[in-house]
Amino acid sequence: MFDFQHTILKTMKIFNTFLLLLFVSTCFSQTTDESTIRQIYNKALGEGKSYSMLDYLSNKIGSRLSGSPGAAAAVEWSRHTMEDFDFDSVWLQPVMVPHWVRGQKETGRIVNSRKMGTVEVNVCALGGSVGTGPEGIVASIIEVKNFDELAQLGTKGVQGRIVFFNRPMDPAQINTFAAYGGAVNQRGSGASEAAKYGAVGVLVRSMGSNSEDYPHTGGLRYAPNVPQIPALAISTKHADLLSKILKEDKGVQFYMESHCEILEDAPSFNVVGELRGSEYKDQVIVVGGHLDSWDLAQGAHDDGAGCVQSIEVLRILKSMGYKPKRTLRAVMFMNEENGGRGGAKYAEMAMKTKNKHIAAIESDRGGFTPRGFTISADTATRRKIQQWKPLLEPYGLTDFSQEGGGADIGPLAPQGTALIGFLPDSQRYFNYHHTQADTFDKVDKRELELGSASMAALVYLIDKYGLK
Amino acid sequence: MFDFQHTILKTMKIFNTFLLLLFVSTCFSQTTDESTIRQIYNKALGEGKSYSMLDYLSNKIGSRLSGSPGAAAAVEWSRHTMEDFDFDSVWLQPVMVPHWVRGQKETGRIVNSRKMGTVEVNVCALGGSVGTGPEGIVASIIEVKNFDELAQLGTKGVQGRIVFFNRPMDPAQINTFAAYGGAVNQRGSGASEAAKYGAVGVLVRSMGSNSEDYPHTGGLRYAPNVPQIPALAISTKHADLLSKILKEDKGVQFYMESHCEILEDAPSFNVVGELRGSEYKDQVIVVGGHLDSWDLAQGAHDDGAGCVQSIEVLRILKSMGYKPKRTLRAVMFMNEENGGRGGAKYAEMAMKTKNKHIAAIESDRGGFTPRGFTISADTATRRKIQQWKPLLEPYGLTDFSQEGGGADIGPLAPQGTALIGFLPDSQRYFNYHHTQADTFDKVDKRELELGSASMAALVYLIDKYGLK
Repeated sequence: MFDFQHTILKTMKIFNTFLLLLFVSTCFSQTTDESTIRQIYNKALGEGKSYSMLDYLSNKIGSRLSGSPGAAAAVEWSRHTMEDFDFDSVWLQPVMVPHWVRGQKETGRIVNSRKMGTVEVNVCALGGSVGTGPEGIVASIIEVKNFDELAQLGTKGVQGRIVFFNRPMDPAQINTFAAYGGAVNQRGSGASEAAKYGAVGVLVRSMGSNSEDYPHTGGLRYAPNVPQIPALAISTKHADLLSKILKEDKGVQFYMESHCEILEDAPSFNVVGELRGSEYKDQVIVVGGHLDSWDLAQGAHDDGAGCVQSIEVLRILKSMGYKPKRTLRAVMFMNEENGGRGGAKYAEMAMKTKNKHIAAIESDRGGFTPRGFTISADTATRRKIQQWKPLLEPYGLTDFSQEGGGADIGPLAPQGTALIGFLPDSQRYFNYHHTQADTFDKVDKRELELGSASMAALVYLIDKYGLK
Repeated sequence: MFDFQHTILKTMKIFNTFLLLLFVSTCFSQTTDESTIRQIYNKALGEGKSYSMLDYLSNKIGSRLSGSPGAAAAVEWSRHTMEDFDFDSVWLQPVMVPHWVRGQKETGRIVNSRKMGTVEVNVCALGGSVGTGPEGIVASIIEVKNFDELAQLGTKGVQGRIVFFNRPMDPAQINTFAAYGGAVNQRGSGASEAAKYGAVGVLVRSMGSNSEDYPHTGGLRYAPNVPQIPALAISTKHADLLSKILKEDKGVQFYMESHCEILEDAPSFNVVGELRGSEYKDQVIVVGGHLDSWDLAQGAHDDGAGCVQSIEVLRILKSMGYKPKRTLRAVMFMNEENGGRGGAKYAEMAMKTKNKHIAAIESDRGGFTPRGFTISADTATRRKIQQWKPLLEPYGLTDFSQEGGGADIGPLAPQGTALIGFLPDSQRYFNYHHTQADTFDKVDKRELELGSASMAALVYLIDKYGLK
């Protein structure tokens, strides 16, 4: 009996000591993480560089469509910037990119409406569209809301006409990306869908959240074996006007003129900056954005923000004297907007090395206040990331529930890489997206900096604990 | 044995039926609430009026400091607007308000610095300050970061000088209101603190989050039995410049000139719109903002947003055909900025009636993306509101953890009213607060509308379920 009691007491003592040690080590680790993350935010908000970097990229370089002089300047700027921050290595990764040019400004004109006569409207060619040439196209115009309505009209109703796709982004969607997803097939596939029935051109309502004066460009994809017809975006305000005129005056004609051209593929680069891992240097964590932008804008939110935030993640960690266990890379992907060649090339090169990309985080939803991260990964990995939520919630990062990675990091999926999307507030993104309004002054300094810090905090946790 | 089993079975059956009924009623109610709240958001985002109301209030009426013609116009506009929406009743509640006028534009000048000579800086008088008169004040200037430093200088260091309070808002605070709270005593009490030691004037670093060209005004309070000395705010950019100059050149002088005056109290009004309750009409739920603004700005975020959102809450519920059980009131409080007389008057009148104010929601943190609500109430009430979180989270409302109500509804506390603050994202608020930059174009339509819907959803839940 005595022995038995003694054994129990001894076991309890050992167990209590174990519990105490567990408690202490958990607290210590929790406290270390809390204070490291606090330090990351202090650096980003108190002595951050993302805002001044974005100022330069937006105001000194400006638009940077693949193959343009701006894109070349942005490549050199990224390289120099990361070299100046003294990252362990910085290199260029060659990639051939599509080369589309807009040419002189487009014309869109409602011709001979009964009540308003001839009305100039604000339009721009969709990226990748063929031009009308200097003679333009004039034809009667028919409004549809979706491809079903188009199919019902058939060749009889569409042949020789311009098709006007006018389904708005649904304002009732709380997430504006969901509203975009519900409308963007008109822009991406509308031209080829209409061409199947003999349309001579298409006019697409801009992918904008509000009533605006300026049009939103963006890429289209021509389907194989269908005539390539010219496609313009029209501002949401003028789309509403045209729709109103068409209700009263179905016979109205439309004149469109565009001068865009598809040139030969051009040489360009992804730009990669690296902090080498001290323990597992063959394990790579990527944080990235895309360096190219549409030609109409400075691309401050899309995706200058993502680029400078990615550079800032490495800069902050380095400036804290943090020695990563794993290799951290900031990647400026080229050609997200009209081809995705940079993302594909990066993944292709990654497959050729012994490196294992354990995680990739993309920022391509603008430089707005952080709300969380989207995660595309196996269940265990997803749960592991979600378990860090208590460390990140004090910084407003509350949403870890959605799936999703990013266009540029998607090609890493076959490596088993956890694909993570930085998720900022979405309300203002589609005011600016792909337009002349996507300028530096639309970016708030603190919102941008909080994004850098959020990404750095997550990179720190993945680096420290791994994902398995 | 048989009987016993039978009794158990019977009891279980009854219990199961009860559970089933509970389940069905919970589901049904949950579904009704979900669909009602969805409908509220659809109304706000699809056919909302808050943005056009704010356009008028900001661009047609503009600034509306208590006692000004703008304030009078805003009172009339609020009344007409709510009458046009056909609320059950709309009335004005008379209140006497302080009447302070800025007079001609202020001057701030760094005099005879060794390196830069004389430098004009951007300043404005703090609200409620006395003026210097046309001769201005010129004196040597001494920088302090807080009242402790001031006390250490004492009369010997301060007498006859201008005190420059230059403690910035802490950029590392995630919540900018916390950063504001950590700095604003310089503005509110700096003048009287400095006057205790014989200062002749004070210059206060603007309460702004960033480096900016324009100054932020805001109220000061003179302590009793201390000389009232003139107080100016200086832009954050010029505060940094002045600090730099003072480091190199301690003998530099400063010239300040302001023409503000405190006039006699003026008559004004709170404006109240009401939808009468069908079951408990003596129970009142208030939703409100303050109608007055500082004179330098349109007061679009502060607090035009809160006013139009409050009107919109009632308009949305009415337009849905919703019949409130309790009485709902939209209250435009007068004089939050420099006296709080409207809030005090409203509470005083509320005490005189048989009405029981069960809850009051104030929106006075700008028209930004909603993040949640702050709650000042007893524990049971707070828990009851927090239990509605699952219904509100899909709309981005995730933060129900903080204490807080609002300046205008605070005086209702002795009634046992649950005081609730609408909590939007705080990052951009102190870019605009109390400045010339607080204009309509700084407000995003969707962000504003989401705020109206969030408040309407909470009002609906409180009205339906009560708070006890």
